[in-house]
Amino acid sequence: MIAVLSKVFVVGVGMSNVGRFYERPLRDLAAEALFKAIDDASNLLPDFIVVSNMLSSQAEQENLASLIADYCGLRGISGFKVEAACGAGGAAMIAGYSLISSGLANSVAVVGVEKLSERSTPEVARGLAYAADADFEIPYGISFSGLNALVMRHYMDKYDVKRDEMSAWPILMHENGYHNPYAHLRMRITNEDVLKSPIIADPIRLLDSCPMSDGAAAVILASEDVAKKCNDTPILVAGIGNALDSTDISSRFELDSFLAARVSSERALKMAKLTPKDIDIAELHDAYTINGVVTLEDVGFAPKGKGAKYLYDGRFRPGDKPSINPSGGLKSRGHPVGATGIYQVCEVVMQLRKDFPGVKVGGEVGLTQNIGGVGSNITTIILRS
Amino acid sequence: MIAVLSKVFVVGVGMSNVGRFYERPLRDLAAEALFKAIDDASNLLPDFIVVSNMLSSQAEQENLASLIADYCGLRGISGFKVEAACGAGGAAMIAGYSLISSGLANSVAVVGVEKLSERSTPEVARGLAYAADADFEIPYGISFSGLNALVMRHYMDKYDVKRDEMSAWPILMHENGYHNPYAHLRMRITNEDVLKSPIIADPIRLLDSCPMSDGAAAVILASEDVAKKCNDTPILVAGIGNALDSTDISSRFELDSFLAARVSSERALKMAKLTPKDIDIAELHDAYTINGVVTLEDVGFAPKGKGAKYLYDGRFRPGDKPSINPSGGLKSRGHPVGATGIYQVCEVVMQLRKDFPGVKVGGEVGLTQNIGGVGSNITTIILRS
Repeated sequence: MIAVLSKVFVVGVGMSNVGRFYERPLRDLAAEALFKAIDDASNLLPDFIVVSNMLSSQAEQENLASLIADYCGLRGISGFKVEAACGAGGAAMIAGYSLISSGLANSVAVVGVEKLSERSTPEVARGLAYAADADFEIPYGISFSGLNALVMRHYMDKYDVKRDEMSAWPILMHENGYHNPYAHLRMRITNEDVLKSPIIADPIRLLDSCPMSDGAAAVILASEDVAKKCNDTPILVAGIGNALDSTDISSRFELDSFLAARVSSERALKMAKLTPKDIDIAELHDAYTINGVVTLEDVGFAPKGKGAKYLYDGRFRPGDKPSINPSGGLKSRGHPVGATGIYQVCEVVMQLRKDFPGVKVGGEVGLTQNIGGVGSNITTIILRS
Repeated sequence: MIAVLSKVFVVGVGMSNVGRFYERPLRDLAAEALFKAIDDASNLLPDFIVVSNMLSSQAEQENLASLIADYCGLRGISGFKVEAACGAGGAAMIAGYSLISSGLANSVAVVGVEKLSERSTPEVARGLAYAADADFEIPYGISFSGLNALVMRHYMDKYDVKRDEMSAWPILMHENGYHNPYAHLRMRITNEDVLKSPIIADPIRLLDSCPMSDGAAAVILASEDVAKKCNDTPILVAGIGNALDSTDISSRFELDSFLAARVSSERALKMAKLTPKDIDIAELHDAYTINGVVTLEDVGFAPKGKGAKYLYDGRFRPGDKPSINPSGGLKSRGHPVGATGIYQVCEVVMQLRKDFPGVKVGGEVGLTQNIGGVGSNITTIILRS
């Protein structure tokens, strides 16, 4: 192990709105985010592009690094695509981080993009199941919602967590996301709304589920000397960690906790020389209510079985330490699959810079956690102003 | 830019045979290669896995890093998948290189795997076209062979290259590959065989084309201090470079040369402080005869328009400087798409270690070049004993 890692900074961020953009091609969404990020980085042009995406194959398009770089006038730079199911964005951040830290690149654009509305909802649901085990899970006909429902049922039973306590999650997310101009679902909801919403996969209800979203987000990473030239408020990537668990959930040692969430956050926090108590703001990966609640505990913000209860008691609001998902999270901001991990980084960077256009929560240390599959590929990132 | 990059070594290699393995799942092929590589590295266990693959989505499986790590008993390590069409292997080597060089990982397994025989040949041909432009090329019905045929026609016309001169490429490839126990097509062919083989996309004939192959190859990368402990003959990754060109070929500045082949080899050679004259052995990406010939020139082994002529005159044989594709190249060894770039690295490493089980060519400096799309994503790697 090399003793001293070179520091890596986020010097530019850019996002498209999250939503359903039937009329816009994937490359156009990516270009909007990338041009905004380059602009934000005082026109620092990247010499490397890392694209994060999961399902462009459904639109018969791979080779996205080449496609997006050329579309943005960057022919001749270097690049590739990273895939890690819904966790592609976080994983792409690791690739981008190491390219800068190793000295192979001076500036890296990490561009997350997903265009799900190329295909019908059943086709997309089938595509999302590619994150599960194609040989040993999918043939049984279980959907991605079905797999998460098993986790939610087990968690609620084991820790005697009530439906109203779980509902505190989506209610807070929609309250936060209501103020986020980029969010897909800007609406407030009540406990009654959650209870009246249809069951997707018992006990998961519609209002426990994130929407299927299109969107693109980009960050520009640079080394310390480059960073100082192009941004007055560069944000340090203080820690970054990833961990893998089994793709299938039947062979897990436990269902009420994600090994990869615990291990990846331990790795990131250790690298940053911080503890969960130091985190002012966190963007967690709540594809379903249960993911948000479980990872709240796995990162160390609540004891096991207490995540939903703490939330129901009023914790984790804007201004609390930590504030959870001031963006509205996947539930309200939306979940443009391969782009989600980059949205999280953009949002926390803007919070630390004090220029996020939605709910402002302040603070100096942020954490993002991005999940692929049912907790099978998780990346945690620590950001510092 | 950081002045001194930490050195990165290949300390273990492993390959499955290349062929059509209808009965073996993707994870099984990957495990064979990875276990062989770990064994070759004196049982050094990787703490990170980078998987290169293009078309597992056709078998409804993504999230390969998690899938393969878990199947190989490595649950809890870190990882992600890299995609860059047929150039995924080379791109994954860059990710692996930078993870070691940055100090984020102590040892990285880069595992290339492709299982094309999950699907019918027309479906695979359609999948391979995902490397082209889905919005502006594929709708016109042109196949990947058709795109390369445009390049071959233009090249032969512009430089007055004869059919017999072009045929020297596949004849040499099959002579070399005949001796490679891993090769997909171990057969010798004559000039007459090429001329009698059916036209795929004029002027490309069947014997100008690589086969559609399944296969997996893996390398273990480590830093200098780790490398010395687990291998008597670690091979240095002396240079590594990637470049992107347009995904479509209609907007290219030229068709008889690949910008990304020139630029990526310039980047890799500059990093290694070497010139094309220093290369003893090269594994080039001859998905079609024309790709081999064009890149022979683009890397700098022959002047423009002379590649096929030099080959026809008898150069580039085993023991020449450079020896080209002693493995048999994509034409004979085969082209397991996302794994090809890793096969190339395994083969050159074994040549430099003097333990390649096919044609042995000797030498101390090797080069691999891996192409995605029609020259749209190219990685060049320099290896030294």
